[in-house]
Amino acid sequence: MSKTPGEIVDEAKTWWTTEIVDIQPGKIGIRGYPIQQLIGNVSFPEMIWLMLRGEVPRADQAKLLEAALVAAVDHGPHAPSIAISRMAVTCGLPINGAMASAINALDDIHGGAGQQCMELLQEIDQALAGSEPSIEVVEAVLASYVERNGKIIPGFGHRWHGTDPRAVRLVAIVREAQARGTVAGRYTTIATLVEEALGRKKGTRIPMNIDGITAAIYLELGFPAPLGRGLFILSRSVGILSHAWEQSQQGGRIKGPMPPSVSYTYAGPAARDLKR
Amino acid sequence: MSKTPGEIVDEAKTWWTTEIVDIQPGKIGIRGYPIQQLIGNVSFPEMIWLMLRGEVPRADQAKLLEAALVAAVDHGPHAPSIAISRMAVTCGLPINGAMASAINALDDIHGGAGQQCMELLQEIDQALAGSEPSIEVVEAVLASYVERNGKIIPGFGHRWHGTDPRAVRLVAIVREAQARGTVAGRYTTIATLVEEALGRKKGTRIPMNIDGITAAIYLELGFPAPLGRGLFILSRSVGILSHAWEQSQQGGRIKGPMPPSVSYTYAGPAARDLKR
Amino acid sequence: MSKTPGEIVDEAKTWWTTEIVDIQPGKIGIRGYPIQQLIGNVSFPEMIWLMLRGEVPRADQAKLLEAALVAAVDHGPHAPSIAISRMAVTCGLPINGAMASAINALDDIHGGAGQQCMELLQEIDQALAGSEPSIEVVEAVLASYVERNGKIIPGFGHRWHGTDPRAVRLVAIVREAQARGTVAGRYTTIATLVEEALGRKKGTRIPMNIDGITAAIYLELGFPAPLGRGLFILSRSVGILSHAWEQSQQGGRIKGPMPPSVSYTYAGPAARDLKR
Amino acid sequence: MSKTPGEIVDEAKTWWTTEIVDIQPGKIGIRGYPIQQLIGNVSFPEMIWLMLRGEVPRADQAKLLEAALVAAVDHGPHAPSIAISRMAVTCGLPINGAMASAINALDDIHGGAGQQCMELLQEIDQALAGSEPSIEVVEAVLASYVERNGKIIPGFGHRWHGTDPRAVRLVAIVREAQARGTVAGRYTTIATLVEEALGRKKGTRIPMNIDGITAAIYLELGFPAPLGRGLFILSRSVGILSHAWEQSQQGGRIKGPMPPSVSYTYAGPAARDLKR
Repeated sequence: MSKTPGEIVDEAKTWWTTEIVDIQPGKIGIRGYPIQQLIGNVSFPEMIWLMLRGEVPRADQAKLLEAALVAAVDHGPHAPSIAISRMAVTCGLPINGAMASAINALDDIHGGAGQQCMELLQEIDQALAGSEPSIEVVEAVLASYVERNGKIIPGFGHRWHGTDPRAVRLVAIVREAQARGTVAGRYTTIATLVEEALGRKKGTRIPMNIDGITAAIYLELGFPAPLGRGLFILSRSVGILSHAWEQSQQGGRIKGPMPPSVSYTYAGPAARDLKR
Repeated sequence: MSKTPGEIVDEAKTWWTTEIVDIQPGKIGIRGYPIQQLIGNVSFPEMIWLMLRGEVPRADQAKLLEAALVAAVDHGPHAPSIAISRMAVTCGLPINGAMASAINALDDIHGGAGQQCMELLQEIDQALAGSEPSIEVVEAVLASYVERNGKIIPGFGHRWHGTDPRAVRLVAIVREAQARGTVAGRYTTIATLVEEALGRKKGTRIPMNIDGITAAIYLELGFPAPLGRGLFILSRSVGILSHAWEQSQQGGRIKGPMPPSVSYTYAGPAARDLKR
Repeated sequence: MSKTPGEIVDEAKTWWTTEIVDIQPGKIGIRGYPIQQLIGNVSFPEMIWLMLRGEVPRADQAKLLEAALVAAVDHGPHAPSIAISRMAVTCGLPINGAMASAINALDDIHGGAGQQCMELLQEIDQALAGSEPSIEVVEAVLASYVERNGKIIPGFGHRWHGTDPRAVRLVAIVREAQARGTVAGRYTTIATLVEEALGRKKGTRIPMNIDGITAAIYLELGFPAPLGRGLFILSRSVGILSHAWEQSQQGGRIKGPMPPSVSYTYAGPAARDLKR
Repeated sequence: MSKTPGEIVDEAKTWWTTEIVDIQPGKIGIRGYPIQQLIGNVSFPEMIWLMLRGEVPRADQAKLLEAALVAAVDHGPHAPSIAISRMAVTCGLPINGAMASAINALDDIHGGAGQQCMELLQEIDQALAGSEPSIEVVEAVLASYVERNGKIIPGFGHRWHGTDPRAVRLVAIVREAQARGTVAGRYTTIATLVEEALGRKKGTRIPMNIDGITAAIYLELGFPAPLGRGLFILSRSVGILSHAWEQSQQGGRIKGPMPPSVSYTYAGPAARDLKR
């Protein structure tokens, strides 16, 4: 029996359902709060938290989130996402388009390390089953992780930095937050043990990087792993926008990855004729 | 005469040039500041400002920017960008991909009104040539603007809201900021006169909307017009991310724009046979 | 010891290496063939094959590929990719931008079924270890597949079509091609057995769909699985472009997923006041 | 008075309206033709034409379109779109995502020259008002065009090629098509006169490039200017896909635009301390 118009309309009205925002003429409610009460009263990181999780965080929680957001905004034009943003501008794209092509590239490898590190730290936490973090459990999970996922441990080691100055600073900040009772510090301890375990195994220091410490912070604050990638994107978007804007001021048309004087290498078949 | 290797290397090194970020082993400088000094010490809006403009703003300036960033985060799943983000998730895209497809759509019509309004307000300011904002000059520029660009005045009127609660609140905030000496208030006054002029002409109130008041605020704070679009994207990205995340929690596969019970309309040629 | 300029230049020249295209002043070679010999002499599907695989196919192979490319161009505006393309145009995006946001959505769920089906058919082929395709082996692999990947079998069943007219036609075409010796028909036989096995298990026909039969065809023609997704994208891009263009002719601004008369459902917290 | 459910349903059914594709259970009609009649019977270029314009072209028209589609598939990894596609793959993006970020970059400057050239040739055609193409009218329109749009004439000149081998070949093909009565050749003649006029003015040859001759061909075949960009994207998508696939086979993670040995240039403020 086919549906009545009333049934169809009811179905259509529930097709798009959200707990985030309620819009009526002259009224915008965010998670229940009138938008005009939020504007000027909550910080931008508090608003990010409210949108993602449904409640306004405490000020000390928001401050820790804010430190992580500030830390990851940029890592220069050799990062593919930044290069893509700048190249896109010289192709004629407006800022939204340049940001889209660049943010798209923040996928598993270029933007997913934080999320993957959160998953690893959670796996270690589960293996600990409530007991104090220990190097033995960390080493066991790491061995299993490497077997399943290969040698790269997300959140540790950096191609440029022997020590990542962002990580050092954020570790200090999260420890201060722990001292004030903002967070438990457990995931940060686990991350530090991962660093130690990797150093033992490799015989050289494999330092925690920005992805590693922000992973710990986001877990301390109760974010699920996929939002680790989301928060990183919100942060790196600032760099992507800034480089798009700077490139637009520098000018340039159809900017290639290297200057024209540096040719690329053709390694295919020698010249040949088409037989038809 | 062809270039020497040394000349080629020099050219290559300047192919990517930036004033934003300096990265050396163990060191990241943002506009000259060591990143570790910024983390935990500047707010996220202050970092956005520093990245885009090269200097850390005063705290009162950053607060005004923050209010504008908080205001524009979301306008619900009937907005194409939000719908795209949610649909993309059900197609299998990770958060970066959903955000990319959605942010891409924040183009001239869906994301450019703020930038266009900034250009309009600047045009009025130039026509005023330093004199006090007057309704006569505003009306003259508006008449010329309509002739060149059509009837839609970016930043004014809203399909949903008779009064935009975000705009009302932000006008109050910018006036407070003006009273404290943070901004001159000139662009806000001009925007208010545009609202008045449109009301007179149409015989009904065409209220300033979120794009109109944020345009005025960004100009008060000294941002160039294209960055109005950029700042809006940073803000709306929060909503785009939140809806992508919510959709991923709701589940769903290949979510169409309407439920399957609501068919679309085919208005093309009747069925016919291919003659071959 | 640091590198000499000559070493750096040599490294830079190999940074971008390709076997596809050789460009010199006044000369463009595609896989070794001068472009001017290809233009007007090879069909578009032959060029696609040459670009992807390095050699020009036989005419009969190209014809089979062409039939598959023709088959998958469109499935209407209820498909998220097509809806995204049309919505994007009303947001101000040019054709490239609308196509980008839409093609991006052809991910694992919305655009990956063909690739996944190719992987499934290959897995069955390997389990057969050179022997004739048999329903028993197919059923065994399917059981294992469901255990690992869940109930959805990519390439079979369709939410709209009891019988997919594209699949019926393509099966006939591939069988003709088999009779002419163009292909072995083995993967098509395997796909037919999958259809039979699913029907037995469910007690109702789960028909092969467009993804299933094109998966078989692409395997018959020797394409690796990831290119199944790539070929589908080339095909569906035609529909995405056509709908973007049609929408641009229809006009419309900021087209939401449903008409404004159909509201969405807010299911979040009731209105509440911010405590600060 | 509010709408009845029946009225709302009627409105919803027309919200998505298309003349392209009619989908019913077991039936897919493309511009009125059953899809099964098209598969195996029309070429891929014929299908592209049918989808975009509503009718199946004559075979000779489709062949000319096909030559243009074949010609523009690739111009190497120094093109930003190709570089973006390859970089995106190393960031973890699947083929759809790499293609999306790349196609997005085919905007006004990198992908719009064909469309712009079509508009220029149409403007010259209108200025001729039906009379025979003459160098005088061409020169007059060009002078006006430069005044309005700047020195760059879309479709003419090339940074790499003194003579574009694709253009030479396509001019020959279109002249053959003209001799057979497929096209009138008028736009090709106009394009040739533009080339002549530019050469006279500059004192050196500014050769017609691939964008110039395909612009003429698409106009000869009756395509509107915006579809010039669309057809170029369909063509270049083949190169974008091929390079994405090749890069995935080469491997690499987070591939920057230049090798790490070639540093970028930081040109911002010297190191300084944050005063707080």
